[in-house]
Amino acid sequence: MTDIQQKLIATRRKFHRFPEVGFTEFITTYEIYKTLKPMDYTLYLGDDVLLRSARVGVPGKDAFLHSYKRAAEYGVPEEFLDYVKEGTTGVIATLDTGKPGPHFAARFDIDGLPITESADEDHIPEKGGFKSLHEGEMHACGHDGHITTGLFLAEYINAEKDNLKGRFTLIFQPAEESVRGAKSVVEKGWLDDVDYFFSGHLGIRNLPVGTVSAGTTDFLASSKFDVKFTGKSAHAGVEPDSGNNSLLAASAAALNLNAIARHGKGRTRINTGTLSAGSGRNVIADTAFMEIETRGETTELNHYMYNKAKTVIQAAADMYENEAEIIDMGEAPNAACSKELIETVKEAVKHNSKITDLKETLPLGASEDVTMMMERVLKKNGKATYMLFPFALKYGHHHPKFDLDESVLHVAVSTYIDIVNWLMKNG
Amino acid sequence: MTDIQQKLIATRRKFHRFPEVGFTEFITTYEIYKTLKPMDYTLYLGDDVLLRSARVGVPGKDAFLHSYKRAAEYGVPEEFLDYVKEGTTGVIATLDTGKPGPHFAARFDIDGLPITESADEDHIPEKGGFKSLHEGEMHACGHDGHITTGLFLAEYINAEKDNLKGRFTLIFQPAEESVRGAKSVVEKGWLDDVDYFFSGHLGIRNLPVGTVSAGTTDFLASSKFDVKFTGKSAHAGVEPDSGNNSLLAASAAALNLNAIARHGKGRTRINTGTLSAGSGRNVIADTAFMEIETRGETTELNHYMYNKAKTVIQAAADMYENEAEIIDMGEAPNAACSKELIETVKEAVKHNSKITDLKETLPLGASEDVTMMMERVLKKNGKATYMLFPFALKYGHHHPKFDLDESVLHVAVSTYIDIVNWLMKNG
Amino acid sequence: MTDIQQKLIATRRKFHRFPEVGFTEFITTYEIYKTLKPMDYTLYLGDDVLLRSARVGVPGKDAFLHSYKRAAEYGVPEEFLDYVKEGTTGVIATLDTGKPGPHFAARFDIDGLPITESADEDHIPEKGGFKSLHEGEMHACGHDGHITTGLFLAEYINAEKDNLKGRFTLIFQPAEESVRGAKSVVEKGWLDDVDYFFSGHLGIRNLPVGTVSAGTTDFLASSKFDVKFTGKSAHAGVEPDSGNNSLLAASAAALNLNAIARHGKGRTRINTGTLSAGSGRNVIADTAFMEIETRGETTELNHYMYNKAKTVIQAAADMYENEAEIIDMGEAPNAACSKELIETVKEAVKHNSKITDLKETLPLGASEDVTMMMERVLKKNGKATYMLFPFALKYGHHHPKFDLDESVLHVAVSTYIDIVNWLMKNG
Amino acid sequence: MTDIQQKLIATRRKFHRFPEVGFTEFITTYEIYKTLKPMDYTLYLGDDVLLRSARVGVPGKDAFLHSYKRAAEYGVPEEFLDYVKEGTTGVIATLDTGKPGPHFAARFDIDGLPITESADEDHIPEKGGFKSLHEGEMHACGHDGHITTGLFLAEYINAEKDNLKGRFTLIFQPAEESVRGAKSVVEKGWLDDVDYFFSGHLGIRNLPVGTVSAGTTDFLASSKFDVKFTGKSAHAGVEPDSGNNSLLAASAAALNLNAIARHGKGRTRINTGTLSAGSGRNVIADTAFMEIETRGETTELNHYMYNKAKTVIQAAADMYENEAEIIDMGEAPNAACSKELIETVKEAVKHNSKITDLKETLPLGASEDVTMMMERVLKKNGKATYMLFPFALKYGHHHPKFDLDESVLHVAVSTYIDIVNWLMKNG
Repeated sequence: MTDIQQKLIATRRKFHRFPEVGFTEFITTYEIYKTLKPMDYTLYLGDDVLLRSARVGVPGKDAFLHSYKRAAEYGVPEEFLDYVKEGTTGVIATLDTGKPGPHFAARFDIDGLPITESADEDHIPEKGGFKSLHEGEMHACGHDGHITTGLFLAEYINAEKDNLKGRFTLIFQPAEESVRGAKSVVEKGWLDDVDYFFSGHLGIRNLPVGTVSAGTTDFLASSKFDVKFTGKSAHAGVEPDSGNNSLLAASAAALNLNAIARHGKGRTRINTGTLSAGSGRNVIADTAFMEIETRGETTELNHYMYNKAKTVIQAAADMYENEAEIIDMGEAPNAACSKELIETVKEAVKHNSKITDLKETLPLGASEDVTMMMERVLKKNGKATYMLFPFALKYGHHHPKFDLDESVLHVAVSTYIDIVNWLMKNG
Repeated sequence: MTDIQQKLIATRRKFHRFPEVGFTEFITTYEIYKTLKPMDYTLYLGDDVLLRSARVGVPGKDAFLHSYKRAAEYGVPEEFLDYVKEGTTGVIATLDTGKPGPHFAARFDIDGLPITESADEDHIPEKGGFKSLHEGEMHACGHDGHITTGLFLAEYINAEKDNLKGRFTLIFQPAEESVRGAKSVVEKGWLDDVDYFFSGHLGIRNLPVGTVSAGTTDFLASSKFDVKFTGKSAHAGVEPDSGNNSLLAASAAALNLNAIARHGKGRTRINTGTLSAGSGRNVIADTAFMEIETRGETTELNHYMYNKAKTVIQAAADMYENEAEIIDMGEAPNAACSKELIETVKEAVKHNSKITDLKETLPLGASEDVTMMMERVLKKNGKATYMLFPFALKYGHHHPKFDLDESVLHVAVSTYIDIVNWLMKNG
Repeated sequence: MTDIQQKLIATRRKFHRFPEVGFTEFITTYEIYKTLKPMDYTLYLGDDVLLRSARVGVPGKDAFLHSYKRAAEYGVPEEFLDYVKEGTTGVIATLDTGKPGPHFAARFDIDGLPITESADEDHIPEKGGFKSLHEGEMHACGHDGHITTGLFLAEYINAEKDNLKGRFTLIFQPAEESVRGAKSVVEKGWLDDVDYFFSGHLGIRNLPVGTVSAGTTDFLASSKFDVKFTGKSAHAGVEPDSGNNSLLAASAAALNLNAIARHGKGRTRINTGTLSAGSGRNVIADTAFMEIETRGETTELNHYMYNKAKTVIQAAADMYENEAEIIDMGEAPNAACSKELIETVKEAVKHNSKITDLKETLPLGASEDVTMMMERVLKKNGKATYMLFPFALKYGHHHPKFDLDESVLHVAVSTYIDIVNWLMKNG
Repeated sequence: MTDIQQKLIATRRKFHRFPEVGFTEFITTYEIYKTLKPMDYTLYLGDDVLLRSARVGVPGKDAFLHSYKRAAEYGVPEEFLDYVKEGTTGVIATLDTGKPGPHFAARFDIDGLPITESADEDHIPEKGGFKSLHEGEMHACGHDGHITTGLFLAEYINAEKDNLKGRFTLIFQPAEESVRGAKSVVEKGWLDDVDYFFSGHLGIRNLPVGTVSAGTTDFLASSKFDVKFTGKSAHAGVEPDSGNNSLLAASAAALNLNAIARHGKGRTRINTGTLSAGSGRNVIADTAFMEIETRGETTELNHYMYNKAKTVIQAAADMYENEAEIIDMGEAPNAACSKELIETVKEAVKHNSKITDLKETLPLGASEDVTMMMERVLKKNGKATYMLFPFALKYGHHHPKFDLDESVLHVAVSTYIDIVNWLMKNG
């Protein structure tokens, strides 16, 4: 194994140990900051990274307190925690070469998932001793690898800065999961004058390491929303008739949401990811809370699902004489990669020996709030693409046994570096 | 208002302020202890009150920790907390007159409910400034009044001890809600040689203060159990097909549990009081947890509900390819009051001017783990009854605006005193 | 076996062979008429029996045509069929002794059920060769025995008419099942000047033959209604999204109707007895039809169920963007037997050797549209009771293997005769 | 309008008037036969058209009797009805030019749907006086236009037979709806030595008349099956607890079938098209019957749906202690058009002035049992394609207001003629 590969693996494993869910990436933000600090970047933190009010799905105070304590125990200094403690996480690093040239931007998402990592013996992070130290949180989507890719790209740009031209912006974005964070970075204006925007994902397609797609299709548009049912409690033994059962309203909603008719025009999705209802065994439940998402192959198909879902939820509330409140928590459009930038990537990596199968595009089949960023770049006449770096997936993304094939990291880093170099010559 | 009435109200309001759910009655236990301490009772605490292993539905460590801190802040001394900190709450007070005579026992339940008390202006505890100080917990069933009744009866017995004969056992029982605590007291042997056993409830029937029933019918037999569904998580956008959805399994179970056919032979009940499922919005839920109870007019009818419920739960698990684990959390039989003791009560209170409408029996229509105690007393050839002390119920038991009509307290206390006096003459 | 017993059995078996569902009792009406014809009764048929417009749940033309043909083939003359062919079935027989005395009325219901009778070898009607000849229809509730009782009572009164006083009205009522027929007889005025009204049921309670209850408690109030869901059809493969699925609306309604909370104040029932939806496998169903009933221990409890059911149905329609039409099909109140008449029965049968266990009352636990008649009689200051004549029930009422213990017939007939005789002396 | 267009419209409208559902196309078969009789084809009827035992979803005797009477009244001679009266409908016409050349086959489906045609004033068949005369049946998919196309192609081939070479087989296939008829024709061997196989559909895509696709993608694989639930009946008032409710089992199945998770790999469908349950309002339903279909973008995806559906159905039966019987009613694979034949069509129609927009392929998005025929042709080394002839769809296929834009008929006929002519030169 080469030196660089060993370093990539070490970095990834470090971040793998302390996964933090969206907007609580206190340790993660600090570690990214610490790595970039010695380089020549201008670094932005806290309210300089994102527009606080444009965040969606921000956790509650207890969650922040919990993460604060954990980060303090980890050793994050209090003065650093002041930047992030209210959920203004993430780092943006900029570097201006001083020479005329294009504005290159790349985005790396940094958050983990609310999943407890597998402790099975055959799960490599368990065996290798780098499993998540955070009960209930896990890097089960590969963002630890994204951070690693971003940091090594940063190192390359910094090292080569005298040979480069134009400007560089590296975005370490919080809270990609549930498409919550991108909007707040976009609204802060960071994407407004980007010429070339790149992002991508490790894994996704179950193909051999060495496969790279220059662009991505099939971003699913998505809506995220919460539902609160409010009914009436009553003693379940003495007078069950006088309750308005929120737990049953929510259960009826959940079943009938999944039963929304498939659409003739393309793929749709719905998921009630969480449901919690009721206060005690012998009390008719008077509250229920659900976290729901819809998706569609197009924005139109997503709206079909979203509107049907609202109908189902209201009817389920009516059925059990409950009130239903629907709280929108975010929305991602679908998006298209710039054809020219796909061509650019194809040209740039032509001689990359790590890439054994170069594809024009691969389908994502999921939602990514990067589409918010791509939409803004395209609107401002920049170009954008999103690349995939597949590997053999033993377990799917978001599975407690999901694991990166770490050899994909070098493929990703070398692709970004090829792109930077090509743009220096041709951009 | 008489002096005694004012004292009763003050005591009740004190306990009303710090409701604690079953097995976490740390402050409550301490305050009961403190009141009884100056009297001539032998007091039992901790493992002397109950058989630890016979408790059901014991909360987790976090709950104990939380209540511990709260009680410590309240001022309960650490050495006292050592008795109760692992959920061995409650107090038993005994007094032996040294003179031959019957063994009289009375039981008062002391726990609150996991309900947040109403802050509406027309809610008297709010107006009167004695609302629950514990967010999410409330004396919504009247056990604060039961404690009060028990303490004033204790005071009377103590004061009159030279004029009394036989032995007295006063049981301040934890965790009546969800019928969890009585069994552990019974298994400790406290009911094994009782001659006359009394307990009762304030409220229940919406009748004027002054109504008293000497006995109670219609105890509902009840089973309490938890269900854990275990499925398989998956990314809800990319591969919803590869998940085994626990949230939908639980929702299907909840709906179909309530749809279990009513029974031709009498009253049945079912309630899924709480449901929590899933870990994140975009993940197919791979766990769900439900707290359920069934009831029946007879033990047989309760078993009908319990067995049907198990069938429904297993089928719901199968439907979504989940595993279901059913964990029994307690069971109360139904019970019958001793006819002789009903007659005793009727005789004893004949001249009680506070009682304006004396009834032989009234129906409970609910479950009470006192039936465990009654069953043991009867089995050991003692006699048992359970009295009701109704008042006008503006809101039902377990409602956030439930409130005692405090004038009922004197009715209850004077009834118990009349019984003690009558037994001294005739028992 | 006595001669009278043999005759009772023969009559019952004759009627058992041609069960006819409510308002299509063409053969049954004819056979009753034929039996009464030679006696001295004034007989009423067709629109003289009932108020056509007050019938509920009247079958459609096809059903009448089908029964017409069947009756014609059986041998019912065309001129007789003219009386009944539009669903004006039943016979009323009156006899005025010419002597002053009370007005005695008794009611016997005559309809069968839409159930196919069992052809099991151990089913006595199969073995005995008197099983239903009408596929899909069956005397599965014992009304064949009621007819038999009524005809033998008629024969007795006719034979003894010179020794009797007052007036007699014998009502052979159609369409008791689903509580549809009584109202139309009541509205015709037949109950308006009755002094003593009697009716009853064979079976119901699983007790030995010889048990008789002089009165009945626990009539369940009941509402019967149909629901039509109207949605929108669509090709299920090409554009499932553009359908409004009535089959799912009805399914959601059915499940959630059964899940309506039990009532703290007493027994309730709900049943969706039939559901039919959709037109073809590959078409989203755009219609659904349900036949539903609710019941309650009191009229108030029945209304609780009925109102909740309407809420559920409307919400289920909304959930799938359907229209729901609710068509009321009948309603029975609950009722109470006259205490004096219960005493009368007890006196009257004191010396009846066939009665081995005389009870004041037994509970019905079901609905009976006789309560409409009782209500009218009581309102007009008459007295009414409803008696039960139990036998050992191998299978419940409405079961394909339900069967009368024919020895109960003589118990019932002799009870009615005793009552007539007693009233002649004391009425 | 040209003469040929007027004739096409007249023919289509004639067939539109007497739609007959699958395997009851008695009038339709006769009219096709009558039209072809004067030509030089060898005509096959009855058991010569299809293998009786390979039909699936054959209607019952009553349906055949009903259609028989209707056809006899229409004027179909009894001796002709003998061929078709047991559901062996359809016509196959063959013509051998005697000259060496390819074997050309084309298939036209002839059945209607169980839908009542709209009588709205703005529905052209109503206005034009050619609406369905058959209550409850309708040509709502355009098969009347397919018959018309086939008959005009037959006329052309017959007229030009001296200028043609090779052999011609024209298949007028019954029972395409619910993919039931093709298999029986295939099993009879009619597709075993076909060189070039053509079929197609009018409409499907909402595109202007003049659009033609030379091939079709996105045939959905499909499984059709029935489910019978068997439970236990009981009186819904007296002993609801002793029933095993089939209506609720079926309702639970229907809801949860629709809730089967969408598949990450592509389109899936499920539909419970019909549901009928129960026998009477006050009886717990002891039977339920459902007609269900699943579909998938691939045969694998269809099997995913089918297997999940079986799991749901069995669990729903278990939940209500029912037995479930699943009866397979047919299955269609997905299929791919021959690339060479798509090229052939493109070449053949190059100069067709009626075609304004020639597409290589369009997606079907539905199931078609023609895939059974295509599969057989390909297996025997022939070539097959399926063409689409879109028009502006005011209402979707299977809608009560579906209507052909009749101008598409000439487009379709001329395409087939072009193909025949091209094959004569190049085939």
